[in-house]
Amino acid sequence: MALEQPYLLFLGDAPDALAAKVARGIADWRPGASVGQLRLPGCNADMKLPDMTVAEARAAGAKTLVIGVANRGGIISEAWKAVLVEAMEAGMDIAAGLHTLLNRQPDLVEAARRTGRTLHDVRVPTVQYPIADGKKRRGKRLLAVGTDCSCGKMYTTLALERDMQARGLKADFRATGQTGILIDGAGVPLDAVIADFMAGAVEHLTPDADDDHWDLIEGQGSLFHPSYSGVTLALIHGGQPDALVLCHEPTRTHLRGLPHYEVPTLEELRVLAVQMAQIVNPGVKVIGCAINTAALSEEDAEEYLAETEARLGLPAVDPYRHGSGKLLDALA
Amino acid sequence: MALEQPYLLFLGDAPDALAAKVARGIADWRPGASVGQLRLPGCNADMKLPDMTVAEARAAGAKTLVIGVANRGGIISEAWKAVLVEAMEAGMDIAAGLHTLLNRQPDLVEAARRTGRTLHDVRVPTVQYPIADGKKRRGKRLLAVGTDCSCGKMYTTLALERDMQARGLKADFRATGQTGILIDGAGVPLDAVIADFMAGAVEHLTPDADDDHWDLIEGQGSLFHPSYSGVTLALIHGGQPDALVLCHEPTRTHLRGLPHYEVPTLEELRVLAVQMAQIVNPGVKVIGCAINTAALSEEDAEEYLAETEARLGLPAVDPYRHGSGKLLDALA
Repeated sequence: MALEQPYLLFLGDAPDALAAKVARGIADWRPGASVGQLRLPGCNADMKLPDMTVAEARAAGAKTLVIGVANRGGIISEAWKAVLVEAMEAGMDIAAGLHTLLNRQPDLVEAARRTGRTLHDVRVPTVQYPIADGKKRRGKRLLAVGTDCSCGKMYTTLALERDMQARGLKADFRATGQTGILIDGAGVPLDAVIADFMAGAVEHLTPDADDDHWDLIEGQGSLFHPSYSGVTLALIHGGQPDALVLCHEPTRTHLRGLPHYEVPTLEELRVLAVQMAQIVNPGVKVIGCAINTAALSEEDAEEYLAETEARLGLPAVDPYRHGSGKLLDALA
Repeated sequence: MALEQPYLLFLGDAPDALAAKVARGIADWRPGASVGQLRLPGCNADMKLPDMTVAEARAAGAKTLVIGVANRGGIISEAWKAVLVEAMEAGMDIAAGLHTLLNRQPDLVEAARRTGRTLHDVRVPTVQYPIADGKKRRGKRLLAVGTDCSCGKMYTTLALERDMQARGLKADFRATGQTGILIDGAGVPLDAVIADFMAGAVEHLTPDADDDHWDLIEGQGSLFHPSYSGVTLALIHGGQPDALVLCHEPTRTHLRGLPHYEVPTLEELRVLAVQMAQIVNPGVKVIGCAINTAALSEEDAEEYLAETEARLGLPAVDPYRHGSGKLLDALA
């Protein structure tokens, strides 16, 4: 799965900023990847990119139109389709991470065939992944693990990539979910892989590399989240991490989607994640905590981070708010 | 996925007994489920069932022809197909757990359409399973967990079912692999389920039941086996076991398929499996060990079991060799 850049970011008729969070991720983490944005009437999201028509975007070099907005009710509207067909006719591929698949829309499939373009549904694996062999690979790997789903694992690994590259280190973000794949243009949609091949897909994503190269693997789910824990363990065993970062959202009152489950502590996460990772890499180290403090004031965030550092004896940062420098210092 | 019984067991041209191990499992664990066996010239396997033609089997009531033999090289031969088509014309469905799918053979698909029969590829999920909700269900659940793959988990849960039913207890084997599904006629082919739905598939397999009813869940893989550990964790978190049985094959020198990985000890398995199961069921108990002593003499087996009991402080049996009575006593 590899998307051609640069992108035209399609925001459609996004009713608010949250509906366009995929576009937000791309604009935040790959600021050079998009030539502009295309908004339909009624769009209330804005990535502060130049507004462009399809023709203008193509003239500016856009190779893929990325749907950066979640659609309502699983329907790809006629208004959207008109733009998507126009983009294909102008020579662009289309990429989306929607539940409703582009490749299930007969009119889009027909337009892609006619124009020779590709419809990328990044939720759907396109590779026949191998069964994991558990062999040690060259290069280094870091994995973000969380006390819960959706607590900042993707942003943590993206921040680490940005900050490591800024220090001249060799590092690559490795996407394992649809938003990460759209941001990076490549990756494995792990939650859609067949059970037997999950760990093999992660091995495939993080192959042999230079000894001083870091793969920064986007985490998924949580060992403590009953709905998705198997995916998390496949990431740990397929990724063979040398380094773990513990991710946590401190204001959550229960596991995401499961009001009858408490969020575990960072200490509990540390114990279990290290035990599981040692099975494939006895030398694994926890390098620090990445705390999602979006719901806290600056003062409360500082206090929480200081208290966490004291309690766990590990660096604790909000990589989105303050950068990941402290984690990198620990890695070095 | 539900197969209609009774079966006609198709042994094909099985070169040896091992090639017919699916048929062996059915004959051992569901002795009343098959009206007879059908063998082609060159078959060296024998389930000691009446040899029958398709017509004789149909007259004896057979509703499904089960392919009880592993084919060579992934090809379903013309000789096999002639029998399968004849069986469909006689009114039987066909069931198989082969890698090569019945439903990918145009001539078989055409014959099924023409005769109105069903081709059951039990490796392929036919249900859209839900995402697990982690809610507590009524009834009791037991799960077999192993130090490795293929160390006796299926036989352990089948023996427990047989012995519990013999004591008048309410118990049902819950199959999670293709051989188990063919034996029981129902189940979930867990290793072929999409990652996000694994734990949900296990919840679906083990729904609310009477308070004194036991679901005996066939295990898969091992928490320690990097290729398949995610599947195992989904079984633990979807199954919410009240009871665990630790399965082990004592002569194995490394994990199956992974010569670079040592087999963990039963003690290591106990610690990790209980930790994982407590996340969804704080009351989980390990009731004993099921040791696959097939490679040991009777004397060595007895010695190993006695030593294991002393070391772990748990009952240890080979349920295939000696029955599961000691485990049932512990459960009660």
